[in-house]
Amino acid sequence: MKDIKDGMTAISKLYNTKKTHILESANLVCIALEKLNALASYEYYGDFKGNPNVSYCAFTNSGNISRPVRPDIFYSNSGEFSHAFSALMESFQRTPDHWTHEEKKRANDVVYTGVMAIACCYDLWQRGSRKTPGTFFEIFMAGILQEVFAEYYFSKHIPLTEFLEGGELDNDAIAEAANENIEDDSEDPELKDSVSSLSTDLVIKSVISGKSLVIPFKITTRERIVQPFAHQRILDSAFGIGRFTSFIVCISETQQDKKNSKVNQVCVPGTVKLYQKHLAPVGGLYYCDTPQRYNALDMQKLLPVKTVGDFFVDAYHFFVN
Amino acid sequence: MKDIKDGMTAISKLYNTKKTHILESANLVCIALEKLNALASYEYYGDFKGNPNVSYCAFTNSGNISRPVRPDIFYSNSGEFSHAFSALMESFQRTPDHWTHEEKKRANDVVYTGVMAIACCYDLWQRGSRKTPGTFFEIFMAGILQEVFAEYYFSKHIPLTEFLEGGELDNDAIAEAANENIEDDSEDPELKDSVSSLSTDLVIKSVISGKSLVIPFKITTRERIVQPFAHQRILDSAFGIGRFTSFIVCISETQQDKKNSKVNQVCVPGTVKLYQKHLAPVGGLYYCDTPQRYNALDMQKLLPVKTVGDFFVDAYHFFVN
Repeated sequence: MKDIKDGMTAISKLYNTKKTHILESANLVCIALEKLNALASYEYYGDFKGNPNVSYCAFTNSGNISRPVRPDIFYSNSGEFSHAFSALMESFQRTPDHWTHEEKKRANDVVYTGVMAIACCYDLWQRGSRKTPGTFFEIFMAGILQEVFAEYYFSKHIPLTEFLEGGELDNDAIAEAANENIEDDSEDPELKDSVSSLSTDLVIKSVISGKSLVIPFKITTRERIVQPFAHQRILDSAFGIGRFTSFIVCISETQQDKKNSKVNQVCVPGTVKLYQKHLAPVGGLYYCDTPQRYNALDMQKLLPVKTVGDFFVDAYHFFVN
Repeated sequence: MKDIKDGMTAISKLYNTKKTHILESANLVCIALEKLNALASYEYYGDFKGNPNVSYCAFTNSGNISRPVRPDIFYSNSGEFSHAFSALMESFQRTPDHWTHEEKKRANDVVYTGVMAIACCYDLWQRGSRKTPGTFFEIFMAGILQEVFAEYYFSKHIPLTEFLEGGELDNDAIAEAANENIEDDSEDPELKDSVSSLSTDLVIKSVISGKSLVIPFKITTRERIVQPFAHQRILDSAFGIGRFTSFIVCISETQQDKKNSKVNQVCVPGTVKLYQKHLAPVGGLYYCDTPQRYNALDMQKLLPVKTVGDFFVDAYHFFVN
């Protein structure tokens, strides 16, 4: 795993210093796929019992098993992935509103493959680093989005000081400000308490219109689904409705039922509808691999669930009408 | 640990079948204190560096160390605890609005001791069961509250069906309904999707006025602080403001800094103020051991932080003006 861990460190460093890292990220995916093909076996794991059933594969090595993978949207070798990735880079020559259905599917599958390849390597050979696949998801998506929105301002923080009224919440006190990581991850929670911004996964801001797109990335072990809706509510309350819009981008959270060799799609349509209606409405919910129950009509009426291919188009339309 | 684990199972069963369990709970605390005194050593651990500094002790056994304990509010042996608990039972002869300052402090310290004694046993001898101390906190508090509010209706669920408008969110679909545990704890997330209520730690309802008090219990490893505010917002939105009020009851979350032998008080005043102002206002925040930074004036202005002793008085006044 040294090559992959070193690669993660390198692209994290590029990302944190606001340098382009898309080619390095794609290259890391190729290394991960080659490692999986060389050292693990990739076989049918089980079905999600739905209508219709959905088949999942998994990688196995020395008694360890990776998370379930959808073979229909996963490029299982680095040659296929490289080819699709190059085609995606060509798609960037045109804005996403001009992408064909095939190009949108390719964008979706490139993201899925990239994130799952890294995640499966960590599942097999570095189980302690549970959060790294989520970090890669975020960095990889940011890299792709920088190709689409080269002129826009990218950030992870929304300063909250500007809405503070009459000093009631002063700068020092507003502190950690809804940072999702405070309670679980911080090395020293007291240090975090001096930040005066709301931390999200990614914010893209149009300097011209002042409108911002907030993009929480969700994958197993990341924050709970309540977080993006709570953030949206805070932003609506603090800045007024319309200034910030959230598009939640997910890689399906699945659960292995090892006893019965089947796959559960972790999926909470009731909760999402409740939050959408009674907490704050988000602009969209996007999945590389949409859980089947999100296709229900009442869900689609309240909050359409679309593919990550559609996400690029909708994000483009959000800024450019 | 067999005696304590069996005791937990027994009181959980009593609680789940709506039987009184307060004496059994107190007895379990005595067993835990005796076990700690017999098998562990209880010594000064380190200070929280504040103004003034706060000293913490910890239990140690065979290289394991418990969470930090505040000796000034902890009855360190079962005799002292039994005596204080009996005095608390006597206090229940009068309603909490008549309690003296000493009685309120005793109630606070009995709760703190009970929860910390169980928690420290699990820290030393059953580290895998991270959630059990939180469960005991909930059950022990419910047992005490049943003494105060014997005539009231106790529950853990708020049915949401009654606010569903025109079937837009139908019964099946509303599903898991904001249950905090869905994503992390459920054995089979798809089964959870058929619940049609909002699950909280404890709801006490006055059958006469229809008013309900929602009581989330917070301790390390429990849900994040966003959850009670998000729930309050959903309840306000679904049922109108004033029907449900949340009192958050906490045992301080501390963090051991082993390198420097000091204790950090995990404490997020900025986040709490942000949520209180922009998510939904809760009725109160109560701590057995209030983190020092919650005493800041701007915090106290927006959301007073009081002791768990005060909680019993405020809960009483909530129902009986």
